[in-house]
Amino acid sequence: MRTRPLKVALLGCGVVGSEVARIMTTHADDLAARIGAPVELAGVAVRRPSKVREGIDPALVTTDATALVKRGDLDVVVEVIGGIEPARSLITTAFEHGASVVSANKALLAQDGAALHAVADEHGKDLYYEAAVAGAIPLIRPLRESLAGDKINRVMGIVNGTTNFILDKMDSTGAGYQEALDEATALGYAEADPTADVEGFDAAAKAAILAGIAFHSRVRLDDVYREGMTEVTAADFASAKNMGCTIKLLAICERAADGGSVTARVHPAMIPLTHPLASVRGAYNAVFVESDAAGQLMFYGPGAGGAPTASAVLGDLVAVCRNRLAGGTGPGESAYAALPVSPMGDVVTRYHISLDVADKPGVLAQVATVFAEHGVSIDTVRQQGKDGEASLVVVTHRASDASLNGTVEALRNLDTVRGVASIMRVEGE
Amino acid sequence: MRTRPLKVALLGCGVVGSEVARIMTTHADDLAARIGAPVELAGVAVRRPSKVREGIDPALVTTDATALVKRGDLDVVVEVIGGIEPARSLITTAFEHGASVVSANKALLAQDGAALHAVADEHGKDLYYEAAVAGAIPLIRPLRESLAGDKINRVMGIVNGTTNFILDKMDSTGAGYQEALDEATALGYAEADPTADVEGFDAAAKAAILAGIAFHSRVRLDDVYREGMTEVTAADFASAKNMGCTIKLLAICERAADGGSVTARVHPAMIPLTHPLASVRGAYNAVFVESDAAGQLMFYGPGAGGAPTASAVLGDLVAVCRNRLAGGTGPGESAYAALPVSPMGDVVTRYHISLDVADKPGVLAQVATVFAEHGVSIDTVRQQGKDGEASLVVVTHRASDASLNGTVEALRNLDTVRGVASIMRVEGE
Repeated sequence: MRTRPLKVALLGCGVVGSEVARIMTTHADDLAARIGAPVELAGVAVRRPSKVREGIDPALVTTDATALVKRGDLDVVVEVIGGIEPARSLITTAFEHGASVVSANKALLAQDGAALHAVADEHGKDLYYEAAVAGAIPLIRPLRESLAGDKINRVMGIVNGTTNFILDKMDSTGAGYQEALDEATALGYAEADPTADVEGFDAAAKAAILAGIAFHSRVRLDDVYREGMTEVTAADFASAKNMGCTIKLLAICERAADGGSVTARVHPAMIPLTHPLASVRGAYNAVFVESDAAGQLMFYGPGAGGAPTASAVLGDLVAVCRNRLAGGTGPGESAYAALPVSPMGDVVTRYHISLDVADKPGVLAQVATVFAEHGVSIDTVRQQGKDGEASLVVVTHRASDASLNGTVEALRNLDTVRGVASIMRVEGE
Repeated sequence: MRTRPLKVALLGCGVVGSEVARIMTTHADDLAARIGAPVELAGVAVRRPSKVREGIDPALVTTDATALVKRGDLDVVVEVIGGIEPARSLITTAFEHGASVVSANKALLAQDGAALHAVADEHGKDLYYEAAVAGAIPLIRPLRESLAGDKINRVMGIVNGTTNFILDKMDSTGAGYQEALDEATALGYAEADPTADVEGFDAAAKAAILAGIAFHSRVRLDDVYREGMTEVTAADFASAKNMGCTIKLLAICERAADGGSVTARVHPAMIPLTHPLASVRGAYNAVFVESDAAGQLMFYGPGAGGAPTASAVLGDLVAVCRNRLAGGTGPGESAYAALPVSPMGDVVTRYHISLDVADKPGVLAQVATVFAEHGVSIDTVRQQGKDGEASLVVVTHRASDASLNGTVEALRNLDTVRGVASIMRVEGE
């Protein structure tokens, strides 16, 4: 074993960073044995130097992250600051000064992954980011390496623990959205401002990263269709139960049937209770992958939290250190397929639509005509009368999102349709 | 991209081999882009050269596997023959003649993995074998690389599809073992001689491989305690249901509580219906991993079949080819921890024991005394009378297998105990 240590700098020392530092210290011997050389924590950049950080030598702590990444003697920079800046500049500077980078930064990778990979390649360095998607669950590496000889057709996952906790709570207790969100906040599963989670921004960033890797193409955050889950109601869950389904916020990346393009989207959807994703409870994450040869795979585990995320960061750290010792790099960005990303209108799936309609003869015929005119085939219809009004629940066969939107617009113009109570996609069948 | 192709020889062209050859041909462009150089099928060693193999140039086919691996111009040898010999000699010869090796051979890896890794290291070559455990499910790479910065404490999995199909059938239909086996055979899930599957040999080989990787130690097939599932009865499933459990054939690799040793075992066990492994249906496989930092992870997918196994083989092939191009090797054997394997008697778990006893006063007291004398604490007891006889179902707290065996032996010597109807371990709580 080499005795000269590999030098690692840590950018950020919050929940994840402090756990990374702790494990680097407590498991130093194991890490050294697995890497083939000891690793040394060479510096820790923080915003608040006065905060006591147990187990970290205060002499290593600095507020000058830029000076740290410019030192020139670093082997690996671990970025767990999050957000776009200053993380992007620091990572770029780290590459320019000879370090490889391990990042947990989903927002940055989703927005600027291609550019960062280009800088890494230019300098012959590694950029690893297993922790950016689904926390501790090994996902980037299996997609990028284990399935490198296969053709992935769909990646569908629960990649946000906060929203899964809320939806699971609504499902199991009949609670409304606000009540479930309040509980998630009280238990620390949701942040004070839950927008990034409940509006699907977090999941969309992960979808962009997963789609890019799965389809060997570039998919940016802007390419991902995004719908949050704040409008999911207890009534939606009742409808889902009627269909033998539950509701999950899903990130779905698909190769088009003709293979010439891909789509990436985040939205709530009904999935059958028999689907492996339906039984993913609480704040857990799971990602379902379908490929030509392997068939159906699922990866399940904690999607967030200091220790789980640190596990993913350290796995990358070991890999990057091994590559440094071997004098090479691991697989970089693979975007050779360069498939275009189609708009949401091209996505083909099934829909569950609840309509409030006038309770009089001929309404169903009118509604059915509108669906037919837009080329959307109906699978089942359920009519329910209630106090002079009535509801119609329509479940469609597979149709494009554009056709469905056209249908819904036309339905709204019918005198007999009082309102469209809900539209929800049905996946995983 | 390099234009000179990497040369790959295929040893064996059965269900898996022919699928590997097919994908290498139909997806040649994708493989080339992902590797950075084209791959060329340079030879295929078979036993029956007369068999027509669609899509494979007959000029590549040979019955002389030894001459093939001695050619000296091969980059990678893919071994999908199975069994110990001639696979072992061929792999060794391949290393000696400059090739890296991708193998799907669980029996060989479990028996001689350390020796083969030593030969690979000696010649600076890769030995990859993702397909040897749980078919298409990425498992070896996540354990070896993604969790390289974590401390794995337990690996518990359903790693044999045949037995899971049989047990799932018994659970869902109430069928007996023989009836369920007959159906599995008729559907092609079980071989004409199902011994390797139903007696747990196949799962034990996988347990040895998983334990070795998870604990960075050498674990051989002989180190794995093995109990088949041929004696699981419909009555056992009824007992399991009473406890809110089902029965699975599990491969369990554990680090001892003191961290100083490991155990590996295969046996049927009751697990709670709420455990993620309980809902693994049909011939699917799933492996549950518990580690210090990541917490609980699960990997799920098809555990066998030509295409799924080919997916795993090709993922390894891409990795090994990339390593060749980069002039290095991937992570080799990691056995630095060198933890000893403890005998089955040291395993600590819970037990469900059904006793046929005389239906008279004082029996429970006698039985409870025997448990207490052997240091096995009782969690629950259920007594049932039936036609002058009675049954006692005892569920214990955690105890060592040695203590439990001592208890059972003593129980058999009690006049009031007519027989021990079944003993089953209870896991996953």
